[in-house]
Amino acid sequence: MAKDGFVTSIARQSEDFPGWYNDVVLKAELADYSPVRGCMIIRPYGYAIWESMRDELDRYIKRTGHSNVYFPLFVPRSLLEKEAEHVEGFNPQVAWVTHAGGEELAEWLAIRPTSEAIIAEVVKGWIQSYRDLPLLMNLWNNVVRWELRTRLFLRTAEFLWQEAHTFHATEQEAADEVALGLEGYRSVAEDWLAIPVIRGRKSRAETFPGAVYTDAVEAMMRDRRALQAGTSHMLGQNFARSAGIEFLDRDNLRKNPYGTSWGFSTRMVGATIMAHGDDAGLVLPPNVAPHQVVVVPIFRDDEGRAAVAGAIERLEGAFAGVQTASGPLRWKVDWREESPGFKYNHWELRGVPYRLEIGPRDVAAGQAVLVRRSDRAKEALPLDALAAELPGHLAAYQAGLFQRALDFRAANTHHVDTYADFKHVLDEDGGFLMAPWCGGDECEKEINADTGATIRLVPFDSPDEAGTCLVDGRPSERRVLFARAY
Amino acid sequence: MAKDGFVTSIARQSEDFPGWYNDVVLKAELADYSPVRGCMIIRPYGYAIWESMRDELDRYIKRTGHSNVYFPLFVPRSLLEKEAEHVEGFNPQVAWVTHAGGEELAEWLAIRPTSEAIIAEVVKGWIQSYRDLPLLMNLWNNVVRWELRTRLFLRTAEFLWQEAHTFHATEQEAADEVALGLEGYRSVAEDWLAIPVIRGRKSRAETFPGAVYTDAVEAMMRDRRALQAGTSHMLGQNFARSAGIEFLDRDNLRKNPYGTSWGFSTRMVGATIMAHGDDAGLVLPPNVAPHQVVVVPIFRDDEGRAAVAGAIERLEGAFAGVQTASGPLRWKVDWREESPGFKYNHWELRGVPYRLEIGPRDVAAGQAVLVRRSDRAKEALPLDALAAELPGHLAAYQAGLFQRALDFRAANTHHVDTYADFKHVLDEDGGFLMAPWCGGDECEKEINADTGATIRLVPFDSPDEAGTCLVDGRPSERRVLFARAY
Repeated sequence: MAKDGFVTSIARQSEDFPGWYNDVVLKAELADYSPVRGCMIIRPYGYAIWESMRDELDRYIKRTGHSNVYFPLFVPRSLLEKEAEHVEGFNPQVAWVTHAGGEELAEWLAIRPTSEAIIAEVVKGWIQSYRDLPLLMNLWNNVVRWELRTRLFLRTAEFLWQEAHTFHATEQEAADEVALGLEGYRSVAEDWLAIPVIRGRKSRAETFPGAVYTDAVEAMMRDRRALQAGTSHMLGQNFARSAGIEFLDRDNLRKNPYGTSWGFSTRMVGATIMAHGDDAGLVLPPNVAPHQVVVVPIFRDDEGRAAVAGAIERLEGAFAGVQTASGPLRWKVDWREESPGFKYNHWELRGVPYRLEIGPRDVAAGQAVLVRRSDRAKEALPLDALAAELPGHLAAYQAGLFQRALDFRAANTHHVDTYADFKHVLDEDGGFLMAPWCGGDECEKEINADTGATIRLVPFDSPDEAGTCLVDGRPSERRVLFARAY
Repeated sequence: MAKDGFVTSIARQSEDFPGWYNDVVLKAELADYSPVRGCMIIRPYGYAIWESMRDELDRYIKRTGHSNVYFPLFVPRSLLEKEAEHVEGFNPQVAWVTHAGGEELAEWLAIRPTSEAIIAEVVKGWIQSYRDLPLLMNLWNNVVRWELRTRLFLRTAEFLWQEAHTFHATEQEAADEVALGLEGYRSVAEDWLAIPVIRGRKSRAETFPGAVYTDAVEAMMRDRRALQAGTSHMLGQNFARSAGIEFLDRDNLRKNPYGTSWGFSTRMVGATIMAHGDDAGLVLPPNVAPHQVVVVPIFRDDEGRAAVAGAIERLEGAFAGVQTASGPLRWKVDWREESPGFKYNHWELRGVPYRLEIGPRDVAAGQAVLVRRSDRAKEALPLDALAAELPGHLAAYQAGLFQRALDFRAANTHHVDTYADFKHVLDEDGGFLMAPWCGGDECEKEINADTGATIRLVPFDSPDEAGTCLVDGRPSERRVLFARAY
């Protein structure tokens, strides 16, 4: 389809956000539907974006002392059922293997929805004394949660992710680890994906099944909905107790260690699309963009083509070894036999930060035209200066996208004090609503049932501020963040 | 256990190879058994070795123009059954999901034993014309084959691997691709893992189910058994036909593309253990070793400790930025409160290429003692010279291990011409047997049933050599490689 038309048409973001999102994912060839309901095929362009954020997070995880490991895909039913709250949370979403090797299995095997249960069982043999702690492990793998309503990248029956699992001698150490995981997610989201996030704690209702508390980072998408960008769980001694993990501490007493787990998934590819994209398609931050610059040669005849090709060949020499914040400059020349207009559209849809147009007259003038994806601003630059200037341009672009997202979030965050206001603002503008809440499960449920909004977080940096709960008028100590969410 | 004893005892390689192998895997903490039969837990040290070979192969795959993608874990039963020979090959090993999301599924889902079937179905929508070819994809994922007899790394019900899948307009292009995949495996095995391999074609009986032919690289382990180190399959038009993939060629005719697939798995961690290890444990090639050098400080009192610590601190400065063939020098200092003897044993078991012993007298003499893992050869080196000398030492060690493995293979490769000789040599010495074969399935089966040996390959570089088949005496054109194998 795209090959034939001059322009790949996609739904307008402002008119049909879900349609726009699906169009971008499919037509920019990030992902595709699979023959299995709810599962996803990640195509090269989408996978390259995932690899970039994965590698950046992996560097953080290793730098902070964690080791990558692998645990099996299968969790025996009896293990999954050891921690009561945990199994209750995941049971409805589990896919079960009942037959294998031509026989019916004596015990059903769950495809891991997450690995707490099997890890707790196994590390029992590894943790004997305080010298074996902390145990800091990380897994990159696939998990399955049988979701009823799925959307590419955002909610799929199978997804790729990272799950860290750690064990500590003291509660304080575990709490520090929960914060360390969260900081990794903040840093990848903000510094790599240019997506500003709010850090905070989940309400009881939104806490991970089996955890003592769950911290998260929450981001705003271009349709003003919230998206959870990573969660970090304090598991306390829950899993250690049910699995019977004990260690001999320095004081010669046997104790259960404290656990944490934290995860970050391919849904962040969806977040990157929805946090920056516009009517023309993707807008990728340079750190994560598979191509940071695409050169579009412009010519009418062989002579023009030769002149442009010569200039591009010289650029090749100049660009070799150019470093950007995310490694060697990633650029490509689009020599396809298509019109320049087709190529502009193609690479805009794919969110390439800069396009470089070079025609024979440019070559004669020793320049090229650099076009910025975010606002199509054009700038003529001397060919000789490009290698030196591009890293700075890319860094400024990265910072600009982050600032734009920050501004957008600020403009769409509302402080409301009454339920009437709350409903009005939510329906009119959406966005983040900072509102007083008594802390009660019932009020939270009622708001959700009434409006579709959930408490996203009790933000860490929300100041003390006396108020009265939207629903039951009881005292509230600070505002919490409500939003409709993905 | 290891913590308490001076020496971690493992079975002797020469007396009990399988026992030695399991001891090394478990006691060097490469992997562990899991609560699910046949599945494996890969621990940090084992996973780091896997990451090293994975990353090296990934670089080759990307350099040669392939893109990483992801396809779902689940393959609907109907898809798996489309290619008759393929399903017959895998059906007995498949694990089936029959229930998910609290309900029984209308169609059973196979856990992928390999992804040809689902990929063929999906690319049908992507391949329309010759311009969409070649399509060069690679997947890093987990697959499940329900094996009855499993061994850590070598044969597990779930394993991690890479599977490349490509589609081409012509048979010749596909054949070149099969060779390209095989060259990747040769290069990772030989240049990264220091394991020499023989390249060749599998017999009909050993060909991948559904393939036209299968090429492979085959290596010899220290017990003289063969291990397949990677396979590359010419799928011809088989999968394209059964899935109905067609493209419009330059000549305006609709054709089925030619497919290839090739894979390399975590079993190569097992191969690395078995190709180089000795009675003291692992012997790791420097390119793949998580630590290339471990420094063991030796001292009796605080004064001695301070002197040694000072020297090590200066080494830290000198070592920063030192590059080896596989990236920045990977070294660590073992400051644990254990005896030097314990540490020597610990790091020998883990196959660290060089140990550096530094005591107060060494510091006074401005030197350290470098001990080579493979033969425990000792060499005193000036502290000032280490940073400059280590990369060369590591490169020589890498080359030395490769040469040692080559020599070992040469010494254990036998040319035999009669079945009696064949059986005698196989039972007495094992190793690789180069012997004449008529090309018949029946003779191959008989040899396997009689002796347990299989035809590993028809080697590419085996010269024309007239002979008579071991079993039925019919003419043979060249020798083929027989061995007992993993």
